[in-house]
Amino acid sequence: MFSAETIANYLKGTVEGDLSTSVTSVARIEQGKPGTLCFFANPKYEKYVYTTKASIILLNKDYELKGKITPTIIRVDNAYEGVASVLGLFESAKAVNKKGCEYPSKISWRSKRGKNCYIGAFAYIAKGVKLGDNVKIYPHVYIGDNVTIGDNTIVYSGVKIYHGCVVGANCIIHSGSIIGADGFGFAPQANGEYKKIPQIGNVVIEDNIEIGACTTIDRSTMGSTVIHSGVKLDNLIQIAHNVEIGKNTVIAAQTGIAGSVKVGENCVFAGQAGIVGHLNVGDRVTIASKSGVSNNVPSDRAMLGFPAMEASKYKRSFVVFRNLPELKNAVDELIKKVAVLEKNQDSKADE
Amino acid sequence: MFSAETIANYLKGTVEGDLSTSVTSVARIEQGKPGTLCFFANPKYEKYVYTTKASIILLNKDYELKGKITPTIIRVDNAYEGVASVLGLFESAKAVNKKGCEYPSKISWRSKRGKNCYIGAFAYIAKGVKLGDNVKIYPHVYIGDNVTIGDNTIVYSGVKIYHGCVVGANCIIHSGSIIGADGFGFAPQANGEYKKIPQIGNVVIEDNIEIGACTTIDRSTMGSTVIHSGVKLDNLIQIAHNVEIGKNTVIAAQTGIAGSVKVGENCVFAGQAGIVGHLNVGDRVTIASKSGVSNNVPSDRAMLGFPAMEASKYKRSFVVFRNLPELKNAVDELIKKVAVLEKNQDSKADE
Amino acid sequence: MFSAETIANYLKGTVEGDLSTSVTSVARIEQGKPGTLCFFANPKYEKYVYTTKASIILLNKDYELKGKITPTIIRVDNAYEGVASVLGLFESAKAVNKKGCEYPSKISWRSKRGKNCYIGAFAYIAKGVKLGDNVKIYPHVYIGDNVTIGDNTIVYSGVKIYHGCVVGANCIIHSGSIIGADGFGFAPQANGEYKKIPQIGNVVIEDNIEIGACTTIDRSTMGSTVIHSGVKLDNLIQIAHNVEIGKNTVIAAQTGIAGSVKVGENCVFAGQAGIVGHLNVGDRVTIASKSGVSNNVPSDRAMLGFPAMEASKYKRSFVVFRNLPELKNAVDELIKKVAVLEKNQDSKADE
Repeated sequence: MFSAETIANYLKGTVEGDLSTSVTSVARIEQGKPGTLCFFANPKYEKYVYTTKASIILLNKDYELKGKITPTIIRVDNAYEGVASVLGLFESAKAVNKKGCEYPSKISWRSKRGKNCYIGAFAYIAKGVKLGDNVKIYPHVYIGDNVTIGDNTIVYSGVKIYHGCVVGANCIIHSGSIIGADGFGFAPQANGEYKKIPQIGNVVIEDNIEIGACTTIDRSTMGSTVIHSGVKLDNLIQIAHNVEIGKNTVIAAQTGIAGSVKVGENCVFAGQAGIVGHLNVGDRVTIASKSGVSNNVPSDRAMLGFPAMEASKYKRSFVVFRNLPELKNAVDELIKKVAVLEKNQDSKADE
Repeated sequence: MFSAETIANYLKGTVEGDLSTSVTSVARIEQGKPGTLCFFANPKYEKYVYTTKASIILLNKDYELKGKITPTIIRVDNAYEGVASVLGLFESAKAVNKKGCEYPSKISWRSKRGKNCYIGAFAYIAKGVKLGDNVKIYPHVYIGDNVTIGDNTIVYSGVKIYHGCVVGANCIIHSGSIIGADGFGFAPQANGEYKKIPQIGNVVIEDNIEIGACTTIDRSTMGSTVIHSGVKLDNLIQIAHNVEIGKNTVIAAQTGIAGSVKVGENCVFAGQAGIVGHLNVGDRVTIASKSGVSNNVPSDRAMLGFPAMEASKYKRSFVVFRNLPELKNAVDELIKKVAVLEKNQDSKADE
Repeated sequence: MFSAETIANYLKGTVEGDLSTSVTSVARIEQGKPGTLCFFANPKYEKYVYTTKASIILLNKDYELKGKITPTIIRVDNAYEGVASVLGLFESAKAVNKKGCEYPSKISWRSKRGKNCYIGAFAYIAKGVKLGDNVKIYPHVYIGDNVTIGDNTIVYSGVKIYHGCVVGANCIIHSGSIIGADGFGFAPQANGEYKKIPQIGNVVIEDNIEIGACTTIDRSTMGSTVIHSGVKLDNLIQIAHNVEIGKNTVIAAQTGIAGSVKVGENCVFAGQAGIVGHLNVGDRVTIASKSGVSNNVPSDRAMLGFPAMEASKYKRSFVVFRNLPELKNAVDELIKKVAVLEKNQDSKADE
């Protein structure tokens, strides 16, 4: 439980009303109940400022009230950023700092780990593994031979990391994600069968990366599949072998990046997008949801559609597509009219 | 093994032929072998009525045989509904009523559970967890702190449920599904990096819900991601944070629902569909497979395409799309003809 | 570590340079470092032949050098096939032949297994399970009642195989894949609810099949969902109940095959493709990435688009789509011109 005063101090904001008003949680403004703190940032929700039952409301410094409201007010420079900080405050209050090894787990005596690590029950740590300080390995995690994991990284229950992969510091990997399974490489044989091409590379995940649930990142045929620092991957994403994803690129759920694609820095890919194999995508490229990129993309482009085109161009084409039957009718009408015109002109010519 | 007589009694049907004919399994009509029961419901398969080697065939009461057949016949009002009941009969005969705790599992002494629960080996039940009566927790399941699970719910091997989530009664969650991983929320920073927005909410799954394999349902930023009673989710589905899915909505595999979307009741979404974030979708809406919804959808609409349009309208546009080259040619032809007409008219005018 | 001489002997190739040059790994030509072997096959990379720092380079027999190069050369008939063999050589050198049962695992005394099996810690082998010789079951794998697995098959960490399923010989199943969860079958009820149709069938996976990470293959309603020999499935693929996939068909990541579809032999489906339920797809069919097949497809067709059309036809339509605004403008222009022509002709007629 935090008081308005504590929260205002934490946010370097000011209180209007009862300093001792206390809250136990954070709520969306339209769902605010007594005992919660809400915030107002999106103008769409302004009406709720005057009806919310939340005990505390976070408002921008410059927001002028248009009526009476019941919650205690905390004024900050930016209410949206403020609420993110408050969420962190509540989370850290709840967080149990898990430490130590739960029984039974399977930890090779030929592995090493730093200070203050947590190893959950039924976790499997193979030989040659190196864990940094404060690493948290939740139950049912599998860490294969010679994997390295940096300081402060959290690996949630059920993640599987194949042998030889490298995970950096301050990463979070959510449940169900699979790091380093074999890339999909098969050589067609004369008899119609396929022969497996061994995948002897690994996956390198740098620092400050978050990976969602059930995302798969395949090991390279040779060398490394590389996820550079600051990348954020959502759930159910496929990253194929030999791919490289540049710094601070953000990829939404169910997107697939095919083999050997190189993606630049600070890109934003929406959900269910796809990139065909062996392409280069520049920096700061955005790909709209469900779009399928089938050619190289220079930096700073916005792509949309399947096959993907520049977004503005695709939109213009799609506007016409929506009314194609009318266009078709117009053409059919023209064909008739032109036939009449031609006939009349011919008959004139014959006169 | 069940006799024709037993099955007919169970279905309130009538037998034509040997009451003692017995079967050990159920088969599709085109694959019927001696010792199996098959059924005829889809007219497309009528020829198999006269060739199937199944021992028993389920027929509609009013179906008139057009020739001699070998299986013993059971007549029922509706053969299709009948076979669903027979499948249940066979399943319940096979079902082992798993009970008790297998060793080794990890069950916090600060958790509680009702009567007749099954806890499989290597399951992890954290502190504060509450399980109802007859709950079945299969091996390798992870149940985080303070999770609640209602009566009769089955959680299959390898499911992970993060702390604080709530699962109702009579639910089935299949292997590999992840409930309550962090929502995908990051605030862009001035230097191009992203800062995690803590996700302090949870997931609430009400009653009578089935969730397929490897489906991910993210916890809310604040408040709850809510799946209402009777919803059926297939495999590999993404439900993002803050989403709400209405009662009895059915969603097929690989569909993705982006953050803060509100879906109504009794909708049917086909496979690989997607809904962009923050949209409202009404009741009884159908979305065709692979379609991408990018605007709010009122109740009772059928949507198709990417971006999705009303299905009938999209189909009309697509019919023209299929023949766009011909349309283009027609226009090119018209341009030539009109140029000739203009020239002729001009030359006439000059005369 | 392998010498040029050893590798050349293994590949039946010839060495140009120092026979004793040794390497510890394989690299892409553009990333070659001392101590690695690289290869040149794709003309796009020819410049790197003359700059690579790799110690050994694999060249086609007939490739004529256009300058001086530093690596020791191994000449073979086909450098691309050669490198696949070399990868196998390195992999087999690294491979630890895992054997025996790690503690703690849960192995029913009513299961059977052949010679030289590996059962990892926390693996769960239920009653009635039969494992062939040399089977490898990694940690956290769940094998349900009465499952059969053939010789030499590898099941990686975290795979779940439901009761009654059959897996053949020489298969590889990667982490996170779920075999035999219930098919998605529900009968709509008058009150808007859905009633589960029991799924009493199983999944049959034949021989020489590889299944990627987090792929889901549902059990049949009755009978079997069948994956025939030699099929290769990538990650995050959905195979619904009652599906049959023909021999040597290859399916890339995130593709979904809906219920009761029958796919032929030697097909190639690219990523994120989809096939609507109950369709028949012939042999040697290719489906382009993101394409959605909504009709039966005869053998030897190439399909593209959503809804999928023959690829060549779709491409022709899409070329026009890209320039639809121009087409629309041309039609608008024609409408004006024809109106003028009609007016002029009318006025002529009036003269």
